[in-house]
Amino acid sequence: VSRSGEFDWISQYLAPLAGPNSFALTDDAALLEVPKNQNIVVTQDAIAEGVHFLTDDRLDWVARKALRVNISDIVAKGGRPYAYSMALGVPDQWRDTDMQLFCQGLAEDQRIYDMTLTGGDTYRSPGGLTIAITMFGGVSNNRYKSRHGASAGDILIVSGCIGEAALGLQVATGALKCAEADQRQLLQAYHLPDPPLALAECVAKHATASMDISDGLMGDCRKLCTASSVAAVVDRNAIPLSAPAKRIIEQDEALWKAVLAGGDDYQVLATVAPADVDAFISLACEHDLVATQIGFIDGAESGAVALDIDGVRVSIDAESYSHF
Amino acid sequence: VSRSGEFDWISQYLAPLAGPNSFALTDDAALLEVPKNQNIVVTQDAIAEGVHFLTDDRLDWVARKALRVNISDIVAKGGRPYAYSMALGVPDQWRDTDMQLFCQGLAEDQRIYDMTLTGGDTYRSPGGLTIAITMFGGVSNNRYKSRHGASAGDILIVSGCIGEAALGLQVATGALKCAEADQRQLLQAYHLPDPPLALAECVAKHATASMDISDGLMGDCRKLCTASSVAAVVDRNAIPLSAPAKRIIEQDEALWKAVLAGGDDYQVLATVAPADVDAFISLACEHDLVATQIGFIDGAESGAVALDIDGVRVSIDAESYSHF
Repeated sequence: VSRSGEFDWISQYLAPLAGPNSFALTDDAALLEVPKNQNIVVTQDAIAEGVHFLTDDRLDWVARKALRVNISDIVAKGGRPYAYSMALGVPDQWRDTDMQLFCQGLAEDQRIYDMTLTGGDTYRSPGGLTIAITMFGGVSNNRYKSRHGASAGDILIVSGCIGEAALGLQVATGALKCAEADQRQLLQAYHLPDPPLALAECVAKHATASMDISDGLMGDCRKLCTASSVAAVVDRNAIPLSAPAKRIIEQDEALWKAVLAGGDDYQVLATVAPADVDAFISLACEHDLVATQIGFIDGAESGAVALDIDGVRVSIDAESYSHF
Repeated sequence: VSRSGEFDWISQYLAPLAGPNSFALTDDAALLEVPKNQNIVVTQDAIAEGVHFLTDDRLDWVARKALRVNISDIVAKGGRPYAYSMALGVPDQWRDTDMQLFCQGLAEDQRIYDMTLTGGDTYRSPGGLTIAITMFGGVSNNRYKSRHGASAGDILIVSGCIGEAALGLQVATGALKCAEADQRQLLQAYHLPDPPLALAECVAKHATASMDISDGLMGDCRKLCTASSVAAVVDRNAIPLSAPAKRIIEQDEALWKAVLAGGDDYQVLATVAPADVDAFISLACEHDLVATQIGFIDGAESGAVALDIDGVRVSIDAESYSHF
């Protein structure tokens, strides 16, 4: 096992990931491309060992997770990611093979999502691996969707399935046991979120407000409602669950809590005017994505979210799962 | 002493720092302004406790150092910073007063350098305070200056004084003792670098290549030469030293090593065609900045840097001071 110096790591493993305006990472900075007729969306999320991922997690998946938690933010605003900058805090015990595996993960997702690395920084991080990604996306002019545009009557729509990652974390820590195939699927959802890239177009065209679901569906819904000064009703029966999640919930209703408040979904929660709901869902469908109506905005009370359980509305003191 | 939650910290201390397209930091992302008729320069540098600063350092100065090590990169490319994103890894022992002091430092430098916060992330960092800043600057179209444009005959110019921060680090660790007023000045240079903001215009107008000096003058000069496939001769007698640095060197010649290879200067090293040297230096002077000729590009051998000591040329195996 060997460990090269910082500049060798940059030239060998990181430079091949760089975009055309980044001088093969031999300069102090880079030029940031401005996509034609688009606004630039910028976001920055960091993940740290022991806080957002576990020490034994596969390093290529950790790299991809670091990218994907940012991709979901860009997509939720109606944008398509095209570039990112990375500050990489490297633990003292890393060797060349660790750096190589980590960068393989970055390369894999750069292909899938069509992005390049603008630059960044590597530094010693004795406290453990830390990855801070700043990501850039292009969104059609004036189509950026904030959390602030929801109004009474809008329909609540989520992408994908909810709760798999939160259940997967319980599998990872040993708190939850189930059939092996189900465990594998849930673990993968936790380790490797799958943000719905093509949904960006639906959001840009049809959403009134939108956000990514990273801290738990109910808490994030409340944040959207607070930002828009509206209230919402979520129909629990309508929340899209994967087959493993369904089976687990049937066995133990208490696990609804993980699904509703657990976090790490990295799907999109959008509000859409009733007239545009069909267009939103069909466009998602054309891109092989599932978008599901889970409730509506009722406008009654600022920031409040109620959960409809089999026809009974329960006021939820939605606790946001915080990584802090 | 008290400690509020992540969202309270964001709304109380960070939101007041946000720019107009950042939704008071209540959204997943922000729109990045594109300065008119300018290209966007992007850079990212992280600093970590125990690696780039000391645990007892003043938190407002740590915040400002985190910004300034990025400002010097933007300025060295010919750009003016206007916005930044921050990933802030917060130690478990931080209380509200720590966050407040840190953000006072950010606010102070936002005023001085005319920048706003686009957004970012705060997260738990049990291993110690970590700050990863991604900074955005505007540079006149096609005036971005990389390290790659130096050619034989160009004059080497540095801004400010060299070596103060490296000597200041030795004062901070107790390795160097000198007169108290000198110690204070050197310590300040280490803790609070002073990147030459207005030099951006000189670089954009007159430099052929440029970089910031962060890892030591000689090593960084070698990087510029390697990138440009040229060689350089640096006249040691011409290197601008502050009065305290001069006094210390006179007492102990061995400290030239710290000055030449110590790092943390955050000044600019530029190459300028002979015909433009006067214009570069007078323009710097108009902005109350000192720019000094310290040598020239001789084009002989790729990447080599020689040091001229009292008329004798010494080939330098320039060791770059690495934070890695």
